[in-house]
Amino acid sequence: MNAETAESTLPVGHADIAAAAARLQGQALRTPVMTSRTVDARTGARVYFKCENFQRMGAFKFRGAYNALAQLTPEQKRGGVLAYSSGNHAQAVALAGSLLGVKTVIVMPLDAPQVKLEATRSYGAEVITYDPKTASREELAASIARERGMAVIPPYNHAQVVAGQGTAAKELIEESGPLDYLLAPCGGGGLLSGCAVAASHWSPGCKVIGVEPEAGDDATRSFHSKTLQTCHNPDTIADGARTPSLGSITYPLVLHYVHDMVTVSDAGLLRSMFWIWERMKIVIEPTGALAAAALLEGRLEGRHDLRGRRVGVVISGGNADIKALCRLI
Amino acid sequence: MNAETAESTLPVGHADIAAAAARLQGQALRTPVMTSRTVDARTGARVYFKCENFQRMGAFKFRGAYNALAQLTPEQKRGGVLAYSSGNHAQAVALAGSLLGVKTVIVMPLDAPQVKLEATRSYGAEVITYDPKTASREELAASIARERGMAVIPPYNHAQVVAGQGTAAKELIEESGPLDYLLAPCGGGGLLSGCAVAASHWSPGCKVIGVEPEAGDDATRSFHSKTLQTCHNPDTIADGARTPSLGSITYPLVLHYVHDMVTVSDAGLLRSMFWIWERMKIVIEPTGALAAAALLEGRLEGRHDLRGRRVGVVISGGNADIKALCRLI
Repeated sequence: MNAETAESTLPVGHADIAAAAARLQGQALRTPVMTSRTVDARTGARVYFKCENFQRMGAFKFRGAYNALAQLTPEQKRGGVLAYSSGNHAQAVALAGSLLGVKTVIVMPLDAPQVKLEATRSYGAEVITYDPKTASREELAASIARERGMAVIPPYNHAQVVAGQGTAAKELIEESGPLDYLLAPCGGGGLLSGCAVAASHWSPGCKVIGVEPEAGDDATRSFHSKTLQTCHNPDTIADGARTPSLGSITYPLVLHYVHDMVTVSDAGLLRSMFWIWERMKIVIEPTGALAAAALLEGRLEGRHDLRGRRVGVVISGGNADIKALCRLI
Repeated sequence: MNAETAESTLPVGHADIAAAAARLQGQALRTPVMTSRTVDARTGARVYFKCENFQRMGAFKFRGAYNALAQLTPEQKRGGVLAYSSGNHAQAVALAGSLLGVKTVIVMPLDAPQVKLEATRSYGAEVITYDPKTASREELAASIARERGMAVIPPYNHAQVVAGQGTAAKELIEESGPLDYLLAPCGGGGLLSGCAVAASHWSPGCKVIGVEPEAGDDATRSFHSKTLQTCHNPDTIADGARTPSLGSITYPLVLHYVHDMVTVSDAGLLRSMFWIWERMKIVIEPTGALAAAALLEGRLEGRHDLRGRRVGVVISGGNADIKALCRLI
């Protein structure tokens, strides 16, 4: 947490999140907050899980996408929207577009989970695939958007997207009451930074911890070194966190509002994911298990003592490719 | 539905269920009722899922077990309780016993899912296993109970157990409002008959349909032939419905209160179970998927038209052995 940056110069504040929450009312689901005696017994903490796996299209991403699309000008809405995404942002933009009557084109990697490719098409979006080993999705997206005159809604580096994602933490705190800690997954930092802004306002004193996959630890290294690090196409089961780096919007927010960052190995991630399936009876995807895994795998030990503390954990999504994951057991 | 039997002569009435609900308050969870746009779009009905996979110990069975154990005499409580079960009833009795300070012994088949054997022990019960191919669990249980002077709480053929299970339907109707149909799984008929009694009182006119696995269709044949049929150790993935037949308590209740019975193949059951995991993001066990599968697999077509109707579906449990089920994909 960097106290030197003036909050007024940062791209997203709590008022943006409050406005996003009003915009999302009746559109996004107010997802359940679950508690578990088994988890509390295992960790010694009082844990509140914000279950965004139950969000529309199966992940928190709907919040940011809807918040951004709802604020397009009538002319932009007529032109349509283009998005690039490893998965959930694609479905989020597709669904938000169909609800708001906006045509959507989604640029997706060829190796995205089949369930996500299909779901994106089923929401009425046009899907254009690319090979992540040879093409840059940002460049491809920009050239298609230019040709067709479409607005681009990036997956995380966008103030309205960040503000939308922050509504998840706002709702969690409204239900759980003040928290001592809030753990959230980190890919490009949209969810993490939005939740951190929300926590700083609605639960002052709450320490926010971001969690990344070990193989894609760019944000963790960026956070600790205070120099933006990148990690291209990291080999991790957490497909939602294969983003190359934090962005110009999310990086300063993470530096200012987040208190610590840790990583989890893919093995630990899978162990925690299946444990949650079996014990809590909810289906969560690997990326969605990051924050829970940091807790269950003891990745905070020696850094933070969570025993007796009130800990919020964001379960970010549930779009698991069951068949593919079953092969990994 | 057999109008000839006088309700006053039947072993369980709605007053027993209301009394059980009062007894369970603060002990059993009031499990969530879920709806799904995807399910409604697929079926044309308005479907309300009563999610007993989120019940304590992972299944509706806690309701009946707690209701029965809570009514033991002080002397019976001192003597302890014995139960026999293919799984969830075992955990239910073990947990109810630990909450009420009653020692429990559970007789379980050797081939019960590992996750259920372990969970039963973890609740503090003594587990005695037997080979279902060579031994009768009823006889074994009776002889142990006699030797040790313990009360036997059978898994379904017991009025207090049936009354406890019926509270699931009472809660569902309180949340959903009146239903046109209620679908519930059927093993020994405890859940089905309890729910049918509840529906007849709290949602008059609601048609109750029981669902069995195809290989263990004894109750369906009993219902249609009005002669008690048996099916010994049926080969089905629905381990909670491997019961040999309805019992002396549940059979007359099923005949009187249930309107129809259908079956689902194991293939259809697995298809529906994984579909629900993937679309609704909840983990349910094969037996727990029976009622949903009847709906999703179109097993009611030609018998009942559910389009436009309000349909309750009991998801009875979530104690899935993830590793074992993954091997079946």
